[in-house]
Amino acid sequence: MSAYLPAAVGMSLSEVDTPALILDLDAFERNLDRMDASLAGKKIRIRPHAKSHKCPEIAKRQIARGAVGVCCQKTSEAEAMVDGGVPDVLVANEVVGAAKLKRLAALARRARVAVCADDAGNVGALDEAARAAGVKLDVLVEVNVGANRCGVEPGAPAVALAQAIARSKSLRFAGLQAYQGAAQHLRKVDERRAAIEAACARVRQTTVLLDKAGIGCERVTGAGTGTYLFEAVSGVYHELQAGSYIFMDADYAKNEWTESGIPRFEHSLFVWATVMSRPVADRAVVDAGLKASSVDSGMPKVAEVEGAEYVKASDEHGVLKLGGAARLAVGDKLKLIPGHCDPTVNLYDQYVCVRGGKVEAIWPITARGAVW
Amino acid sequence: MSAYLPAAVGMSLSEVDTPALILDLDAFERNLDRMDASLAGKKIRIRPHAKSHKCPEIAKRQIARGAVGVCCQKTSEAEAMVDGGVPDVLVANEVVGAAKLKRLAALARRARVAVCADDAGNVGALDEAARAAGVKLDVLVEVNVGANRCGVEPGAPAVALAQAIARSKSLRFAGLQAYQGAAQHLRKVDERRAAIEAACARVRQTTVLLDKAGIGCERVTGAGTGTYLFEAVSGVYHELQAGSYIFMDADYAKNEWTESGIPRFEHSLFVWATVMSRPVADRAVVDAGLKASSVDSGMPKVAEVEGAEYVKASDEHGVLKLGGAARLAVGDKLKLIPGHCDPTVNLYDQYVCVRGGKVEAIWPITARGAVW
Repeated sequence: MSAYLPAAVGMSLSEVDTPALILDLDAFERNLDRMDASLAGKKIRIRPHAKSHKCPEIAKRQIARGAVGVCCQKTSEAEAMVDGGVPDVLVANEVVGAAKLKRLAALARRARVAVCADDAGNVGALDEAARAAGVKLDVLVEVNVGANRCGVEPGAPAVALAQAIARSKSLRFAGLQAYQGAAQHLRKVDERRAAIEAACARVRQTTVLLDKAGIGCERVTGAGTGTYLFEAVSGVYHELQAGSYIFMDADYAKNEWTESGIPRFEHSLFVWATVMSRPVADRAVVDAGLKASSVDSGMPKVAEVEGAEYVKASDEHGVLKLGGAARLAVGDKLKLIPGHCDPTVNLYDQYVCVRGGKVEAIWPITARGAVW
Repeated sequence: MSAYLPAAVGMSLSEVDTPALILDLDAFERNLDRMDASLAGKKIRIRPHAKSHKCPEIAKRQIARGAVGVCCQKTSEAEAMVDGGVPDVLVANEVVGAAKLKRLAALARRARVAVCADDAGNVGALDEAARAAGVKLDVLVEVNVGANRCGVEPGAPAVALAQAIARSKSLRFAGLQAYQGAAQHLRKVDERRAAIEAACARVRQTTVLLDKAGIGCERVTGAGTGTYLFEAVSGVYHELQAGSYIFMDADYAKNEWTESGIPRFEHSLFVWATVMSRPVADRAVVDAGLKASSVDSGMPKVAEVEGAEYVKASDEHGVLKLGGAARLAVGDKLKLIPGHCDPTVNLYDQYVCVRGGKVEAIWPITARGAVW
């Protein structure tokens, strides 16, 4: 709600107030290039996950490079994307409740919108909302491909739900949502590859039955930054939902990548912080704590300062343990690599976009707080 | 940034969209009563921490009951409080950097403002900013009373810094900031009591020297919800900075309270969530994950649903494990008790204030995201 801006275009990075969410544009664009190169020649489309960035400016840059659209987790995120000029949004999640379904159906009058379902009652409610809005809504069946979160079981249960969708007058069965979220942070390449092979088997088991039932399956969509190349070459998936590749957070960086074929994306997203206290030789305290960087997947990493480790976060403090070599004084500014990019982005209202040490742009995070 | 509101005044709770941050006004007011009763007859003032609520509507209610003002962690939080009508704010933290110091000094022209310092260079910068703004700024010395975060060591180092403040033309030495943050969540009462006794010894060691130096110490301020009654009866502290007592989160609820003398504050803050998926008998998935409830101090607790445990959070999903008795269907709404109230509040733009099952008010969280 604060109208304060920590930066202005043209400022040098050293002048940017802290904490601020910094996007290194060169690194960000190299990550986009790496993704493009890794998919060159493959018959697969990318539909990047906008839950990671929540920013139409980024979505439009992804689409300009050939992304088919974006996916979102929430109706209000999808609204923010459409408001920002994105023409094609998949809500890669279930949407429940009359208020949300009404908004979702209304959104389908302004953009190409699809949504997922894993419950027959919800399919009925989706049909009713679409009918009331006078739209035909694309609905995908979410299948549990091993993450054990949402989704119907593969095979007959998925087919039964697809048939319920196909029978609904205001809905169109648009394929399978098959995201193996639990595979993304398995550290070893072989574990991730095996998890995606198992997911693919579950999808195939389902598409064979969908074909037999005469429904077919025009689209299988899923995948994340940790595994997307395995889905890409599976022959099973049509769309990839990777999101974090543009930023590469500290948790993803802990994965093994060698031999995966997946490029080493580089860190482009940072929390810009100031040393606010330097009480003893081996401790510095920065002004970026839990409200500046989400620690759900581990503490942030200190970038570019040898021997400094971020060891403890409280609301507005981050405690750094300093080894012998680390030189930090009160007032020094430094970059932190967030442990988990998605919930960290959700703490900020703008990216301070930096190139060559200068602020080139401020991009509003218009879906910040869009949890509905 | 979303203009969407999940609730309107007069709505029944069951109609409120999810996720929403619910404040149970009866429970909130009982917590205010409990705090008042626990301090009745004691010569101590309360200066509640506004980092917990970030809401002038709440600050003004605390002040109407006798709070001397509020404390904040950041300059922008203090600005939001003053903008909302709070006349007295202590920034219970160091403020570093020219841009922030300029704003802090400007704020001191609009309200009674004080700030902490633990570094001689910072004292010089504070003096310069106060001089430029034409104000005399109250500065407290932050003393390390055992938390090992910010703060100079007690005794001679604290006195030297107090003298530097007292010598500064545009500053006034206004006392000691002595917050033992590491004590607040020690589970056993005896451990918390012992930590505060040790903190009090460090403060006394310092105030004796301040008296000898002819500076004196008009104010010792500190304490949190976990220990405040120990500081209140210490004879050492003048102000208590408890914040979480108004909400009582799941982490604080894990403390032992019996024999502490501190009342059992009750949960008044909830995340209102919807069951969005019910894929198998023992699992429900709610629409409130990492972006709806901070998990830094543990998962949220499910309120009022026997046998349901929140076991895993991803960005926009919370997985509940269900015991035999739990009855939950897709579309059911339920209350979650956040693990840690402060960073959870910081995810939302408003409290949906409920009394007797009806929405009585919507209070804006005007300092949401105010990290500067």
